[in-house]
Parts: sequence; structure tokens; C-alpha cells
Amino acid sequence: MQPGFSFTVDATEGAARAGTLVTPRGSVPTPLFMPVATAATVKGVDIGRVRETGAGMLLANAYHLHLRPGEETVEQAGGLARFMGWDGPTLTDSGGFQVFSLARQVRVDEDGAFFRSHLDGSPVAFTPENSMRIQERIGADIAMQMDHVVPLPNDRAVVADAMRRSLRWAARCRSAHARPDQALFGIVQGGLDPELRRESAAGLREIGFPGYAIGGLSVGEGPEAMIATLGVTVPHLPADRPRYLMGVGQPRDIVAAVASGIDMFDCVLPSRCGRNSLVYTFAGQVRLRNARHARDPRPLEEGCPCIACRHGRGYIRHLFLAGEMLGPVLASIHNLTFYQRLVARLRDAVLAGRFEATARDLLAGLDAGAEESGDDAEALGPGDGGPASE
Amino acid sequence: MQPGFSFTVDATEGAARAGTLVTPRGSVPTPLFMPVATAATVKGVDIGRVRETGAGMLLANAYHLHLRPGEETVEQAGGLARFMGWDGPTLTDSGGFQVFSLARQVRVDEDGAFFRSHLDGSPVAFTPENSMRIQERIGADIAMQMDHVVPLPNDRAVVADAMRRSLRWAARCRSAHARPDQALFGIVQGGLDPELRRESAAGLREIGFPGYAIGGLSVGEGPEAMIATLGVTVPHLPADRPRYLMGVGQPRDIVAAVASGIDMFDCVLPSRCGRNSLVYTFAGQVRLRNARHARDPRPLEEGCPCIACRHGRGYIRHLFLAGEMLGPVLASIHNLTFYQRLVARLRDAVLAGRFEATARDLLAGLDAGAEESGDDAEALGPGDGGPASE
Repeated sequence: MQPGFSFTVDATEGAARAGTLVTPRGSVPTPLFMPVATAATVKGVDIGRVRETGAGMLLANAYHLHLRPGEETVEQAGGLARFMGWDGPTLTDSGGFQVFSLARQVRVDEDGAFFRSHLDGSPVAFTPENSMRIQERIGADIAMQMDHVVPLPNDRAVVADAMRRSLRWAARCRSAHARPDQALFGIVQGGLDPELRRESAAGLREIGFPGYAIGGLSVGEGPEAMIATLGVTVPHLPADRPRYLMGVGQPRDIVAAVASGIDMFDCVLPSRCGRNSLVYTFAGQVRLRNARHARDPRPLEEGCPCIACRHGRGYIRHLFLAGEMLGPVLASIHNLTFYQRLVARLRDAVLAGRFEATARDLLAGLDAGAEESGDDAEALGPGDGGPASE
Repeated sequence: MQPGFSFTVDATEGAARAGTLVTPRGSVPTPLFMPVATAATVKGVDIGRVRETGAGMLLANAYHLHLRPGEETVEQAGGLARFMGWDGPTLTDSGGFQVFSLARQVRVDEDGAFFRSHLDGSPVAFTPENSMRIQERIGADIAMQMDHVVPLPNDRAVVADAMRRSLRWAARCRSAHARPDQALFGIVQGGLDPELRRESAAGLREIGFPGYAIGGLSVGEGPEAMIATLGVTVPHLPADRPRYLMGVGQPRDIVAAVASGIDMFDCVLPSRCGRNSLVYTFAGQVRLRNARHARDPRPLEEGCPCIACRHGRGYIRHLFLAGEMLGPVLASIHNLTFYQRLVARLRDAVLAGRFEATARDLLAGLDAGAEESGDDAEALGPGDGGPASE
């Protein structure tokens, strides 16, 4: 890896790893969960409170920041971290996924993606080269290659074409990327096809990246297919580089992915669910609008150090029912804290050589509250998070 | 005053006073500005951040809490302060103003006000007696009498009738109020009429209260009329009791009211304006959506200790333009901090015997930024705050 960056595997158990990722703006332990700060803010949570959740690294989105406020403004403010007042490492997604999911009138060819902004309809071009330039100016510690994302399920030929184009774009990104204090990660594509995933991973290794992401998952394929795809992809990635599963996921998906050898995650679920009054605990999900919580003096989770858990459930429920902004804020803070505690427990378990038992216990607890989930409209299943922006 | 409560005037300069209000849940310096936590939350600001603004005492609204979540829920949670996680004194407005401004199909007679909830249309009755019972169960340190509020301008006879009914209700509240660890304040009414205000103040003094509020102002009468009314009212209030000007106001109104002998304030303006991207500084108002702030690295106010001021103006502007919740949150925190710093400066000036010069300097600074105000829709003048809820 380039100067200022390193990745060390501190311990392993089976495929699961505990590691340390070092960047010019600090080091973070892995497994790592990055809260999503799409537009340079974790929705509703001030940056001090974000730090208090235990987060070590944040993810922002180059597509959104390019459209608003523009990478020049972020650069002039001293880069992404300083712009949002964050004193740790950051990562930007290239925006490929957002172009293909949010933008209008998207036309893609070998050169890049040409589309209209979802904000004002103005024409925008994203190419591997200008994606690098944009991300360099935004100035996160880690940038992501631009990739070609296609919806799943899809014809194998379409998935294969997009994967191979993504490989060619990976090479162009690698050539265009010049910022020495920023690492560039490649992204494995290939849908649910083991052979395409293998080909993608091999192609990226040949180009050579300091880290490898797995993209195109958590888009509705279901947890079994996701884990199966990890199983056929991770073995083709180098053991001495961090592995980042983009846009995943539910707590149980994270446990399973760590068991498959993943080191890094990002997902909008903790804040998106929090805004919708759904909170995570190690004993399952809690739906705060449920009348049973109206006079419950207990915190969302006993022993949780977050500021939401200084209140009773009844108070936070009241905030949601009264339409008070503080409800979503507190539930987001709790969920973000939960995710950090989850990955910390997974790391500690690997370090202590009891990952398998810990993962089993965690999964049993996470499923225990399933009776609270019901089938209401707020339920968000695996895949609803979607990669890297909210 | 009853056990556990006291009010001491620490220093005076002209009519201006610096004092100390002691309650069972702690003492607070005056002049005092109480942030408004209508539904047991200062909108968008977690309670730890509220404390960090320098706030010593919070105001909530009995009308709103009675409708949702109900005083029983607040009582069972340990009372208002514990319900919202606040470790200092609190005050509840009786809800009289809200009944007359928010409720539907209001019928008022000597017994009380009968109306339909603005939330679900259900029938509600507010009488002096049940207002006391509701506020006792909510459990703030200070409760307010129920009063009859009429819109201004209005016929003198209507204003006089409402004032005299408010006096009779004051006596009934005084008789009905039984909670020994809660103080009950009377409210002077009488519109802009000096004789009616004098009559109201004299009537309340005869009943005897540990503190006196001035109601019915900041409802569109303009700053000159408000200050004139204070001038003819304050002299009729006892010097050894706290004087509370309800629902006021703009920073310059607070400076003028302190000069008139007022000790306590509440107002929705800091948070309401903050949500609308208008921020206060000692050099005038700043409209964050203004393009001039797009790349301004300066904080909202140099030397301000609030967490918003760790960011550049450009960042907070970006949050507003991107529709991010954190924009309103940070601007609210800044404005609440500004109000606390304002009353602290006024207090320090009285204690140091330089109130007159300080007030003059503050007013000059507050008006200095007027060129930024423009005439856009966000402008909020004196009186737009309205009493005691948002």
C-alpha cells in the first residue's frame, strides 16, 4: 500500500478477521462499520454525537457532493473531513450506484455515464477520469473506482458486460488517480454468478488495489444469495488487503459477512430505520410506535451508553408520536451506537478466539425480537439499505 | 415564597436587575432566558446540547402535554424534568394562550374554556382548577395561572372583561393549587391600557403570588407599545418577586425589557428562526441561505462556544440547501447559545454597574446586521414569537 496507508490482520478465526486499517487521518479497527454521511452529514446527528457512537470512519457520496455543494466548495473548505468537522478517516463512494439509481435519462457507454441531475435536471457526465478528479478534490482518505451497476436479476450477458466494463473502468481509474494521500479501492462486480465474480476479482488483483470492495449486493437478492456470493468471491481477494462489502446491511448480515471474511461495511439502515422509529437491540428490533412502549421507563437497551438510552422508551415514543425531530435524532444515535457495538463485539470475539460462539449468540439474540417486527410498512428487510447513500 | 423557593435581587442599575431564582431543582441567575420545550423537547436539540447552550431552566406547555402524551404519562415518568432528561428547573405555561390560539370551537365562560383539540378534535375542558391539577401532575417547579387571552387590538371593554376574568381565575388557581414543591405565578393582563394593567397587577398582588408574569404582549403590538406597557406595569409589581415577560422576544426586545425591570423570558424565536436558517449574532442577523456564505469558512460568530460554530458558515448553508436536518439543528443550537450569552452579558453588566453602556452597545451591534435582513419571507419581527409554544 502507498505511504500513510496500511492494513494489518491482527487475528483470524476461520475466515473471520480482526484487523487495523491505517490511513493518513488515523487508524481504525476492523471489522469496521462506516456510518453514511451522504451529503457530508450523518442525517440529523451532529458530528460530536457521531463520534460518541464509537464510529471511526465515515462514508460520503461523490455523486451527491458533486451536485451539491460541488467538489470545489468541499476542497476549499479543507476537504471532506474538515468540511463536516470530522477528525478521522473518510471514504467516498464514486457515485456509480447513485448515477444508475437516482439520476434521470442515464446513457452509458464505454467512456462513462451521461445523465441529468436528480436535483435540477442539469446535464452531468461521470467518467472514470473525472470521478477520480472529483473524489480527489473532495479529499477523502479512500476513494472508490467508478463502476457500471446494473439491476438484478438480469441476463448473464448484461451482468458480464457491466462487470467487464467495470474492470476496464477500474484500470482507467487506477491510471487517472494521482492523489498520493488517498487510497483507491477496486470494486468486484458480477452479480450472483460465481464465475463472473471470480473473473472480476482476478481482474482487479491484476490491476492491483490497496483494498477491494464487493459491490452489487444488498439490492434485494436476499441474505442467502448474498452470503453465497461472498463465499465464492472472498477467496479470490488477497488476504493482506481490506475487504469492503458495500451497502450492507442488517445486523445479522454483518455477522454473517464477517464470518465470510469481510472487514468493512457501510449502510444507511441504522439512521434510516431510526428515522422510522425502528430501533435495533441485541435482543431484536423494537418498534417504538407500538403502544406497549407508551409508559415504559426502560431505555431502548440496558447498558447502551448512547444518549437516547438515558431516556425511557416512553419518552422517545412520545417524540415520534408528536412528530418531534428529536425522536428520529435519538433513534438514529441509538442505532448507530448499536452498529458500532456490534462490530466491536465481533472484533473482540475474533481476538479472543471465540468468534463462532459469539456469532451464534448474537444471531440468536438479534432474531429474538422478531415477534415485534410484525408486517407493518416500516419493516425494512435485507437489501433495502442500498449502497452508500440516503 | 414557599419553602424551597426564593428570589434575590443581587444588583440593580436603574430598573434593571440581576437576581437569583432558587427552586427545589436548582437555582438560576436572572435575567433568565428559558428555551421553549413545548412538548417536552426543545425542537431538534438533545437535552445534553440544550444544557451546553448555557440554559438553566426550560419551559413546557401544559396544553400540549395534556393532549399528548397526557399528564399521567409525564407524572408516571417522574415528572416533566425527568421525562425529558433535564436536571434543572422547569416551568409550565398553563395553556391559556394555546387554547385561544390553537384549539377549535372554543367556548369560554366564567367556569373555564371548552374546546376541541387541535390534534384530533376531541372535546377538552380547561378550568382554573383542572389547569392546576394538570400542571401539578406534569410537575414543573413553576406553574402558571390559567388566564383569559383575547386578541389585540380589541375593544377596551373586551380587554377589561378578559383581564378581570383572569383575575378571578387567578384567585381560583391560587385556591386550587396544592403542590408544595411547585410555585404558582400570576399573569398580568390588560392589553396596552395602562389603567387596566395597573388594576390587574394590583389585583394579583392582593391575591399574592411568589412571582408575576406579564402576558398578552409580543402579539403584534410592536416594540414601542410593548416597552411602554412594561413601563406602566412593572412599577406595580413587588420588587422582591421575579417578573416574567411571557413569549418575548427579539434580542433587542430582551435588552429593552431588562432595562424595564424584567427578570425572566421565554421565546420560540431562537429555535424557530434557527429552523428557518436565520441566525443571531452580536453583530446582527445572518441569513444562511444567502449565496455570500457559500464558501465562507468563518463560524456564525467568532468566539461563540457552540458546536455549530466549529463549522464554517459554508457548511451550515450547504446543510440547509441540501434539506439536511442537521442544518436546523445546528442553527437552533447556535441561536439558543446566543440568547444565553445575551442574558449573561446583561446580567454581568448589571453586576458591574455598566448596564446602560452595555445595553447601548448591544443594541448598536444587534442592529448592525440589519442590511442582511432584507425583506424576504423568513423575516420574523417582534411579536411573531408568540407566547410559550411552538
